[in-house]
Amino acid sequence: MQTALNEARAAAERGEVPVGAVLVRGSTVVARDGNRTRELSDPTAHAEMQVLRAGAKILSAERLLSCDLYVTLEPCAMCAAAISFARIRRLYYGAPDPKGGAVESGPRFYTQPTCHHVPEVYGGIAERQAADVLRAFFKDRR
Amino acid sequence: MQTALNEARAAAERGEVPVGAVLVRGSTVVARDGNRTRELSDPTAHAEMQVLRAGAKILSAERLLSCDLYVTLEPCAMCAAAISFARIRRLYYGAPDPKGGAVESGPRFYTQPTCHHVPEVYGGIAERQAADVLRAFFKDRR
Repeated sequence: MQTALNEARAAAERGEVPVGAVLVRGSTVVARDGNRTRELSDPTAHAEMQVLRAGAKILSAERLLSCDLYVTLEPCAMCAAAISFARIRRLYYGAPDPKGGAVESGPRFYTQPTCHHVPEVYGGIAERQAADVLRAFFKDRR
Repeated sequence: MQTALNEARAAAERGEVPVGAVLVRGSTVVARDGNRTRELSDPTAHAEMQVLRAGAKILSAERLLSCDLYVTLEPCAMCAAAISFARIRRLYYGAPDPKGGAVESGPRFYTQPTCHHVPEVYGGIAERQAADVLRAFFKDRR
């Protein structure tokens, strides 16, 4: 999660909403990245999507079996569904996102009958640090 | 929608689950594509995501204001959320998807308080043709 937090801080320096993600398999980091929606002019370029797409490319596989994902913020509906499609084994996330999240908030996607793969979910990992990075970013911009 | 159906048929010929999408602005087609999850080894490469990402690149904008999206199947949670993030004005879709959809099915994403932009939604457009393309594909593979 410290690597994901570093990716979130790097995103803040680029002027992006600071969220970072890391895809791992065993003890190997497969992909790490932060939010790049502005830089890429791509509304889908959330940190989770970036590492899922990079990981799938690196592993030449649609399904990232036995991969785990760390992300500093509770995933939104787009990312929660993509994590499911990629068959991620374990999802670790930092701060909850009551305004836009879809794991413990809003649609609670993994509880839906239309969700066909549910990862093991561990929320609140380094929650305070993850929330602090976001808070500092939005405070600076007000 | 006929253009989207042609993209769905082209996807079937590539061995992909046949879903097609078209992004339009006024009377101009901005992007058209079909599902490419297998070809690209990318679990996020649904037809809708393909045209949203292509459109954002072409228009150099994260937000596809005044763009409308046609897709042959009810969007899943990933695509429904991406459509919202991209600020799509109108969403037209063909067949409903009770097993994996997220507009009228499952999480009904646009009714959630965590959804911050709701497009105008028109379902059931050329529904029978869209469903037939899917049915023929899965029948051939059984």
